[in-house]
Amino acid sequence: MVHFYIYSVDRLGKPEIIVDTLSVSMVKVGIVGASGYAGGELLRILSIHPRVEVTVATSREFKGKPVSYVHVNLRRYYPNLKFTDVSIDELTSRCDLVFINTPPSISQKITPKLLESGLKVVDLSPDFRLKNPEDYEKWYGFQHEALDLLQKSVYGLPELHREELRRAELIACPGCNATASILALTPLVESKIVDLEHVVVDVKVGSSEAGRKPNLGSHHPERANVMRPYSVEGHRHVAEIIQELNHLSRDKVDVIFVPHAVGAVRGALASCHTWLTSQDVDNNALRRIYARRYSGEPFIRIVGEGLFKYPDPINVVGSNYADVKAVLYEKKAVISFCAIDNLVKGAAGQAVQCMNIMLGFDEKMGLESPPLRPV
Amino acid sequence: MVHFYIYSVDRLGKPEIIVDTLSVSMVKVGIVGASGYAGGELLRILSIHPRVEVTVATSREFKGKPVSYVHVNLRRYYPNLKFTDVSIDELTSRCDLVFINTPPSISQKITPKLLESGLKVVDLSPDFRLKNPEDYEKWYGFQHEALDLLQKSVYGLPELHREELRRAELIACPGCNATASILALTPLVESKIVDLEHVVVDVKVGSSEAGRKPNLGSHHPERANVMRPYSVEGHRHVAEIIQELNHLSRDKVDVIFVPHAVGAVRGALASCHTWLTSQDVDNNALRRIYARRYSGEPFIRIVGEGLFKYPDPINVVGSNYADVKAVLYEKKAVISFCAIDNLVKGAAGQAVQCMNIMLGFDEKMGLESPPLRPV
Amino acid sequence: MVHFYIYSVDRLGKPEIIVDTLSVSMVKVGIVGASGYAGGELLRILSIHPRVEVTVATSREFKGKPVSYVHVNLRRYYPNLKFTDVSIDELTSRCDLVFINTPPSISQKITPKLLESGLKVVDLSPDFRLKNPEDYEKWYGFQHEALDLLQKSVYGLPELHREELRRAELIACPGCNATASILALTPLVESKIVDLEHVVVDVKVGSSEAGRKPNLGSHHPERANVMRPYSVEGHRHVAEIIQELNHLSRDKVDVIFVPHAVGAVRGALASCHTWLTSQDVDNNALRRIYARRYSGEPFIRIVGEGLFKYPDPINVVGSNYADVKAVLYEKKAVISFCAIDNLVKGAAGQAVQCMNIMLGFDEKMGLESPPLRPV
Amino acid sequence: MVHFYIYSVDRLGKPEIIVDTLSVSMVKVGIVGASGYAGGELLRILSIHPRVEVTVATSREFKGKPVSYVHVNLRRYYPNLKFTDVSIDELTSRCDLVFINTPPSISQKITPKLLESGLKVVDLSPDFRLKNPEDYEKWYGFQHEALDLLQKSVYGLPELHREELRRAELIACPGCNATASILALTPLVESKIVDLEHVVVDVKVGSSEAGRKPNLGSHHPERANVMRPYSVEGHRHVAEIIQELNHLSRDKVDVIFVPHAVGAVRGALASCHTWLTSQDVDNNALRRIYARRYSGEPFIRIVGEGLFKYPDPINVVGSNYADVKAVLYEKKAVISFCAIDNLVKGAAGQAVQCMNIMLGFDEKMGLESPPLRPV
Repeated sequence: MVHFYIYSVDRLGKPEIIVDTLSVSMVKVGIVGASGYAGGELLRILSIHPRVEVTVATSREFKGKPVSYVHVNLRRYYPNLKFTDVSIDELTSRCDLVFINTPPSISQKITPKLLESGLKVVDLSPDFRLKNPEDYEKWYGFQHEALDLLQKSVYGLPELHREELRRAELIACPGCNATASILALTPLVESKIVDLEHVVVDVKVGSSEAGRKPNLGSHHPERANVMRPYSVEGHRHVAEIIQELNHLSRDKVDVIFVPHAVGAVRGALASCHTWLTSQDVDNNALRRIYARRYSGEPFIRIVGEGLFKYPDPINVVGSNYADVKAVLYEKKAVISFCAIDNLVKGAAGQAVQCMNIMLGFDEKMGLESPPLRPV
Repeated sequence: MVHFYIYSVDRLGKPEIIVDTLSVSMVKVGIVGASGYAGGELLRILSIHPRVEVTVATSREFKGKPVSYVHVNLRRYYPNLKFTDVSIDELTSRCDLVFINTPPSISQKITPKLLESGLKVVDLSPDFRLKNPEDYEKWYGFQHEALDLLQKSVYGLPELHREELRRAELIACPGCNATASILALTPLVESKIVDLEHVVVDVKVGSSEAGRKPNLGSHHPERANVMRPYSVEGHRHVAEIIQELNHLSRDKVDVIFVPHAVGAVRGALASCHTWLTSQDVDNNALRRIYARRYSGEPFIRIVGEGLFKYPDPINVVGSNYADVKAVLYEKKAVISFCAIDNLVKGAAGQAVQCMNIMLGFDEKMGLESPPLRPV
Repeated sequence: MVHFYIYSVDRLGKPEIIVDTLSVSMVKVGIVGASGYAGGELLRILSIHPRVEVTVATSREFKGKPVSYVHVNLRRYYPNLKFTDVSIDELTSRCDLVFINTPPSISQKITPKLLESGLKVVDLSPDFRLKNPEDYEKWYGFQHEALDLLQKSVYGLPELHREELRRAELIACPGCNATASILALTPLVESKIVDLEHVVVDVKVGSSEAGRKPNLGSHHPERANVMRPYSVEGHRHVAEIIQELNHLSRDKVDVIFVPHAVGAVRGALASCHTWLTSQDVDNNALRRIYARRYSGEPFIRIVGEGLFKYPDPINVVGSNYADVKAVLYEKKAVISFCAIDNLVKGAAGQAVQCMNIMLGFDEKMGLESPPLRPV
Repeated sequence: MVHFYIYSVDRLGKPEIIVDTLSVSMVKVGIVGASGYAGGELLRILSIHPRVEVTVATSREFKGKPVSYVHVNLRRYYPNLKFTDVSIDELTSRCDLVFINTPPSISQKITPKLLESGLKVVDLSPDFRLKNPEDYEKWYGFQHEALDLLQKSVYGLPELHREELRRAELIACPGCNATASILALTPLVESKIVDLEHVVVDVKVGSSEAGRKPNLGSHHPERANVMRPYSVEGHRHVAEIIQELNHLSRDKVDVIFVPHAVGAVRGALASCHTWLTSQDVDNNALRRIYARRYSGEPFIRIVGEGLFKYPDPINVVGSNYADVKAVLYEKKAVISFCAIDNLVKGAAGQAVQCMNIMLGFDEKMGLESPPLRPV
């Protein structure tokens, strides 16, 4: 049930409520893996989503505890919601749609059962992102058991697959690094103005990307001030980046992808270094290419003038925006950037955006609040 | 004009819009001093406030620039709003209510003119907080020129002055340190279970408290990892803390107040150390005292169990909540804490809360989003 | 063996080596618990100590690995030193002195055996700090099995116990919070100018205090921007603080001690709030009391004028200094501060200082380098 | 005068001083621009340098103040040294050697006079780094007035120019970004195993790089959590990088160089992305190429196994080390990294290393202390 308070007021006068409540059915949503950071962000965003009600939140570690026991920021928001163990029966009986937010190889076991019961699934795990079955063994080390769903799933990047998302029943949300990298490069790859055989993607990410589970690399004294390359010899996200860029270019794109941990908690920045194939491109042309490609996109902002004139995740914290910009480098190369909040546009926010599209809601529903700054 | 989209939908079906727009007049709001951090937060919060429209935003330094030139997080939110110089004429002709967010001594010159023209004023500066005229010279070093308004202004802490705020025309919002300190101590002071002659308030604050103007103490290399006492021999906020605590206790409260800069950007924590005067108080009694005092308060959360069980500003970032808790210390003392986001409950959020009360709106309007965490 | 290079040179000329090496025997040192932060700091400091050679470094988790496998900053410094398991035989046969750096209750089992074999022990664990046997059960939850050594051990705070340290065989180094708190209060407690029944010690500490083992509270996203009270209802260090302050005052000192985690990696600041018992004390008198008490102390710096005029751990990072200052608060109270690097003066540095005293070396040996700033 | 304390001791016995002092003349050193961060680091390092005495430290802003007024970490280290204005007479009469640490275009006016008076100069400013006179106008916007010295000055990167440094009278120390970039690439460029026409250098730097003067970009709330590209369309350091790489390769190297501000205070990391020209290179070959090139280098550490296995500035804080490593990327590309402390190997430390070489001292003198970690 949604409550609408509709006022009739005079200027500065006391508002008079005309209509108190309208009967609107809410979509019932479950979150599998709700105690981690992406789970917490789903709960945060959905707490103010006017058409969705969270009915199930699973966590093996915290079952029986209120969700605000773990997500202490959410005190007061879910007074009656407690973590439960994963139960297919409970999910199918209490939910219309399920977000899945589990380590690799779990979702491919759960998702087929949910789909069979007529539920929709928005999967934040990597299990249905890659179209090539062999990639799962290569990059994630498991044998995929639901290969038939790989073609059915839609890669959850609205800027590339919006139409397919409208008809989707299973959405595979991109990794956060992949989201930033693909959005930075899409206009260049589509317009074919750069050398697709020499593309360098140098990514910087905040510590929340590694999740809520403590480990040495994310231990505060070890992480607070780092500039630390990781997974240098091959990061899993490169598989989906290449899959999508190849698809966009209808050609083979050769990408060097190297992520770096830096000291922030939130944020991912992709810095993409490419060489121009044409001498006729200047900064105005670049701006037009990006503006045209992302025209009408509700969450892509082309960064223009201002006190800070390049994309920086600090400017999108807590929001679903992706700030992008491409600039010419000495008339021979293009540097393009994309900055996102790794937990929002890189995870929970994009998942809600995809859900909105799939359910026919306004794409921005629940995602309207501006970024928080400074922070 | 407010747009309401009212849907009639089937379960997971396409929503059908019944009523597109209802005619509701919006309150027109000006922000004097809109390029700083509190100004930016007012713009952020008001951008999603359903009953308010920002019509004027002043900044001497950035006049002529779009507000998103400075507040780059707000790109897209105020496409037509540009900074202007302060003009009483413009404010009175284009606004119903004005937020003032200036350094000490400016507001006392502007505010009388605005009130005379029938506008309401929510002042975030210290100019109308203190009831004793001499305090302005002592603490702020200026001769107050609008002494007649000191008794008329209402101290903008809803938890202490809600009823007066409903009838206010001039609201003097508390300093952020004062907000945290007073909220931590109020139940103790009112219930008189602690020795009011030995109260220590040790405050920790983030760097955004010092504002957007660069200075050595807030220079990143000098500030990033500090635990730095400041204004030790007398911080201005102590005057309003004592004013309010004396008022609450109907007695003289003797407070040592020492703030410390720490490495966060946002947040203020007041740690209040007091000695019990009664031996009959235990943690349950403390909990009851706080729960009763703050019962029904929309923005006070008494911190109970959870992974983190004491107030910490990290749990309220971006929100108007004040998390409070008091605990017994070795049966002889009470430590009480209050954690706020210094720019929200400590500034812009509390100002909007006060405005909502003054205008008869729902007190939480525009302030419903949960805190952002982790961040 | 120590190598001395003695030069005879002309102004800017090429130096000529007169004497290459002098035969000086080195003290052989073992470190039990060498893979943690305090262990790493001992290795760092001792790597340039001219009279000490580290012959044993134990770590159960990393046995067999070079010490620089864990302490990657020390690459090149200990090319031949590998972690081993703890073996009393190895320690007694290869060491003259042992630093112990283990969780509570381990040292009390090892130390008696080492002392019996004629070794000297510098214990950084709490096992021999407290003189009252019952305190171990109360604060640390174990039955002490070497009670006879409690009176023999010397509390390793040179500013209070230098003479006893010269004759010590077993030194119990203070906790970092205790070091800062006691050094801030000593001159006040000894001079009896403040009310010893109302002493508030509000401590702020960096994340390295909790050690190298990952845990939720020190997980970067959970810790990066906190102002988080912890152990509010009783922190272990209060036992040794009260023991030492009672000893100094020859009376009972009543202390409220509350620590707070803040966002830095290194550092501890004690802010001590006290009420004056005499009206005759001004800031000059306070300065004299502190200057006199700490006259000649090699590692106590009374903070005077400068761009930053209060103690702040950021000014002592990497060094063994304790910066202290006391200031008058409204003629009625005194706020005294002590800032240390929790891993140096709060742990490894103070342990080396104690060792130097015990062995008759220059007290500053190995500890001469200035603090690192900015950092 | 240097004091040598030479001991003769028994095992754990009291040391007996044989020789108290040897007469050794000290080199007298001046620092022009001593109140900034690099100036502070020179003072820090030289305070424990056994052959150097700082006799002059200039600062227009702080003249008359003790150096520890600004560099509060150095309290006690220079009890008699006060900032003075720059005076050529004072420098020539009181110094043998001068470090210059000024904004662009100042040194070219001072340095000729100092050299004429027979002093040696170690210049940390860019004024004598570039050999092509036109580069000064292009990159720094000033007309160089001492062009004759450009060929005489030696680029102060010992790993490339050690022999010339031994005979130098004027040393032009590299920029910090340039140091990291060149050291990461040198073995690749010299061995010509990568495509020199497609070299991407993506640099991350800490906030101390921008100096001690407050500005918006380094204001704590604006800087604490950034991943912010800057000078994207052309950073000054690229000129010296290309000059040195062209020199190494005896060919034209085409470099894209993009720096990024990240949240640390100290550190610079260069991530260099290149494509292999030969298929025969594997990780072992890369390791050999780097090990051979940097064999015997006192401050280059090739990063091997360990808990952290890629270069990260966090592992070299406070030291003059450059940690380097190159790894194969999918058999087609090489990623090479170099991590330095921007204020040490990137500024003051390298300047002292150069001075040591020029004066015939041990190259590591004053620079022996290990990095500080964690921090």
